[in-house]
Amino acid sequence: MEKIAIFPGTFDPFTIGHESVVNRAMGLFDKIYIAVGFNSKKDALFSLAERKKFISQVFDDNPKIEVMHYEGLTIDFCKEVNASYILRGLRTAADFEYERAIAQVNKAMYDEIETVFFLTMPEHTPINSSIVRDVIRHGGDVSKFIPAKMRIKNIK
Amino acid sequence: MEKIAIFPGTFDPFTIGHESVVNRAMGLFDKIYIAVGFNSKKDALFSLAERKKFISQVFDDNPKIEVMHYEGLTIDFCKEVNASYILRGLRTAADFEYERAIAQVNKAMYDEIETVFFLTMPEHTPINSSIVRDVIRHGGDVSKFIPAKMRIKNIK
Amino acid sequence: MEKIAIFPGTFDPFTIGHESVVNRAMGLFDKIYIAVGFNSKKDALFSLAERKKFISQVFDDNPKIEVMHYEGLTIDFCKEVNASYILRGLRTAADFEYERAIAQVNKAMYDEIETVFFLTMPEHTPINSSIVRDVIRHGGDVSKFIPAKMRIKNIK
Amino acid sequence: MEKIAIFPGTFDPFTIGHESVVNRAMGLFDKIYIAVGFNSKKDALFSLAERKKFISQVFDDNPKIEVMHYEGLTIDFCKEVNASYILRGLRTAADFEYERAIAQVNKAMYDEIETVFFLTMPEHTPINSSIVRDVIRHGGDVSKFIPAKMRIKNIK
Amino acid sequence: MEKIAIFPGTFDPFTIGHESVVNRAMGLFDKIYIAVGFNSKKDALFSLAERKKFISQVFDDNPKIEVMHYEGLTIDFCKEVNASYILRGLRTAADFEYERAIAQVNKAMYDEIETVFFLTMPEHTPINSSIVRDVIRHGGDVSKFIPAKMRIKNIK
Amino acid sequence: MEKIAIFPGTFDPFTIGHESVVNRAMGLFDKIYIAVGFNSKKDALFSLAERKKFISQVFDDNPKIEVMHYEGLTIDFCKEVNASYILRGLRTAADFEYERAIAQVNKAMYDEIETVFFLTMPEHTPINSSIVRDVIRHGGDVSKFIPAKMRIKNIK
Repeated sequence: MEKIAIFPGTFDPFTIGHESVVNRAMGLFDKIYIAVGFNSKKDALFSLAERKKFISQVFDDNPKIEVMHYEGLTIDFCKEVNASYILRGLRTAADFEYERAIAQVNKAMYDEIETVFFLTMPEHTPINSSIVRDVIRHGGDVSKFIPAKMRIKNIK
Repeated sequence: MEKIAIFPGTFDPFTIGHESVVNRAMGLFDKIYIAVGFNSKKDALFSLAERKKFISQVFDDNPKIEVMHYEGLTIDFCKEVNASYILRGLRTAADFEYERAIAQVNKAMYDEIETVFFLTMPEHTPINSSIVRDVIRHGGDVSKFIPAKMRIKNIK
Repeated sequence: MEKIAIFPGTFDPFTIGHESVVNRAMGLFDKIYIAVGFNSKKDALFSLAERKKFISQVFDDNPKIEVMHYEGLTIDFCKEVNASYILRGLRTAADFEYERAIAQVNKAMYDEIETVFFLTMPEHTPINSSIVRDVIRHGGDVSKFIPAKMRIKNIK
Repeated sequence: MEKIAIFPGTFDPFTIGHESVVNRAMGLFDKIYIAVGFNSKKDALFSLAERKKFISQVFDDNPKIEVMHYEGLTIDFCKEVNASYILRGLRTAADFEYERAIAQVNKAMYDEIETVFFLTMPEHTPINSSIVRDVIRHGGDVSKFIPAKMRIKNIK
Repeated sequence: MEKIAIFPGTFDPFTIGHESVVNRAMGLFDKIYIAVGFNSKKDALFSLAERKKFISQVFDDNPKIEVMHYEGLTIDFCKEVNASYILRGLRTAADFEYERAIAQVNKAMYDEIETVFFLTMPEHTPINSSIVRDVIRHGGDVSKFIPAKMRIKNIK
Repeated sequence: MEKIAIFPGTFDPFTIGHESVVNRAMGLFDKIYIAVGFNSKKDALFSLAERKKFISQVFDDNPKIEVMHYEGLTIDFCKEVNASYILRGLRTAADFEYERAIAQVNKAMYDEIETVFFLTMPEHTPINSSIVRDVIRHGGDVSKFIPAKMRIKNIK
């Protein structure tokens, strides 16, 4: 049986921490769908199209990785693409409690799903999309925090 | 002296975790006012009337339980209904830090009040109103997460 | 029905934080057994007799409080004294996770028991028996950290 | 070389906990700029002018302390005023994880900066600006939570 | 390439939480070595032979699972059995911080290893080997906390 | 007035994380006493003499740093060397809660002392002396985890 995972997130924007999780998890799965969660009510810094383009720039030569988006329940998207695993990165203890609640509720609603966690690397621990957005908004340089292949135009 | 507690919360919506806390705390108090906090500025998924109705469906045959609402300081409502105890459920360490701050500030403002904490049951740990709301918004089935007697119409 | 609680602990030694929890919980119960846990394998700074004497000095004129000791499972002691509640103080998030595990396992083994938590006062948050023991061992003054009525002889 | 720190925050409003951190850190620095972060998109309870006036009332006779405001990256403000240290207070474990992320990202962007943490006093642990704002909004008395010299008019 | 994981632990004793993690992770790996860590200096409640026997009782008909033991560095054992993954269960935020340190140090010493985390089920959250040992020592019934197939003799 | 700090710890052994904290804090103080806590009852991997020698190797050409040891209360040692500051590194949320308790008790016993915290660098977060000891005991290579100038003989 094929081992299919989704890697869901808002990815506003995708960071070097996300990239590292995908790269290290790749050996474990036959296919990873990077699934950009779309929420029409929440203001994002980057549009859905931009967020998907950024991620494609990072993994475009990798046949195992496909960038998609979804709206609705994560488990419904899992059923749609036939995924049995949800891949998530863990940075901090605060992260953990939130991730645990989401994962256990997903499991309660759909027993065939398992959430598999990878740690971020120590040097990526402080980096999250919300802090990166803040730096971008104030005109700071985020090149250290995003994948080398990702091209955020007009951002110094 | 009568032992009166309030169980304050937004309850948007009331969950199976809330129900369990009230049921297990009931032996300790002569009266528990379930006090729906009302905040005119915050958008709720369910109206105040709906939230009160849901809770009433769960406890309607229990003379010890009364469903009320309040706007303003929790300690002012305590004084109004002559309550000496605030009842709260604890799920996680993150919960705990927030609850501790609120309880200690309440105590600093009104020395006669004590906050009494019950744990949620292990199987209810991942369930909170915010996750339940999210599932409802995306059309998911929340019947496992809300009290059996509670009837959320048009929700599958 | 009488509301009986036990307040179990090693109490090596009893601190001002423990005293405050008992005093604030007293209104909620008809009887509180302060139950000194005895572990023949662990080295304690104070003997069981000393620990019980210290606590008696604090509450000797209070008919609601009785100082006892036990060895074995806490829930077995609860059954023995007919207690339906275990009283515990909570100081920190780290405390909370430990207390939650113990309380939920007790509940799994004996469904009629409930653990009821009170917060320590903010100014007592850093005080725990292990730190107090350390200060005593190094000849420091612990009078700020123990109940006023408690007389630790030869301790400056 | 002069030891210059900034103490950045929203200070909506400044609390007794903030005051205590500044007072205890004062011996370590030659100059502390209390830097009110200004965010034109976020609703604050008090205007920038009010927030600066409150803090000035507390420290007006202290030549080491200067009240300023800034918009933009904190490290850019540090460069502007020639500060090598960012001063922050720590209250809780949840606080800590957030503060760590911010401080480590600041360090990644500007290697010459160090964030120096002081603890709040135990009795100030539950007090934060968000809770104080909430009490003010509901007409409660916050005099215990703000510096004695601070005059919030029309607040009982 | 074969996907080989080790599931290291002291397993003194193996619990229902461990069993659940192995069962849910099984689909992801071709082989899981349950690796009982042996520490000649630490007192264990059960001997190494007993601990291995218990685990064998649970998985004896499963060709994917093999029970082994090791002394020394976990990464050295990984190299020995050609494992690229370390499997661990996560229960709580406190667990998480400890697990993260171990996993990141393992990664720093041996870059080809990845630690993969599964959550325990909510109802297993309070169960850990240390609490189970404590209950056994006091003559309590642990049948709810250990796998159904595991036969701890003379334990009621 | 001279700004004198002590940096207390067991340092069994001193790590690259400790070194980084001292180096980054050095600009803030006129003198830092690295104070090796000595506990005759606890087994250490390295003797007091070895631990002091290791630290001296790291800072031997730095006139601001002096390596000492003490037995007894940390605040008594502070008084002895006329230090007004205790310097500590913070790695994780679990660390934080422990450090907070110690620091607040020290402050309660000796009001003139302040504990000043620096963060460890993200890449040093997983490294603590206990894990380093464990690696050494199992014959692993710890050169990445200790200062470059430190020479642990017979350790590969």
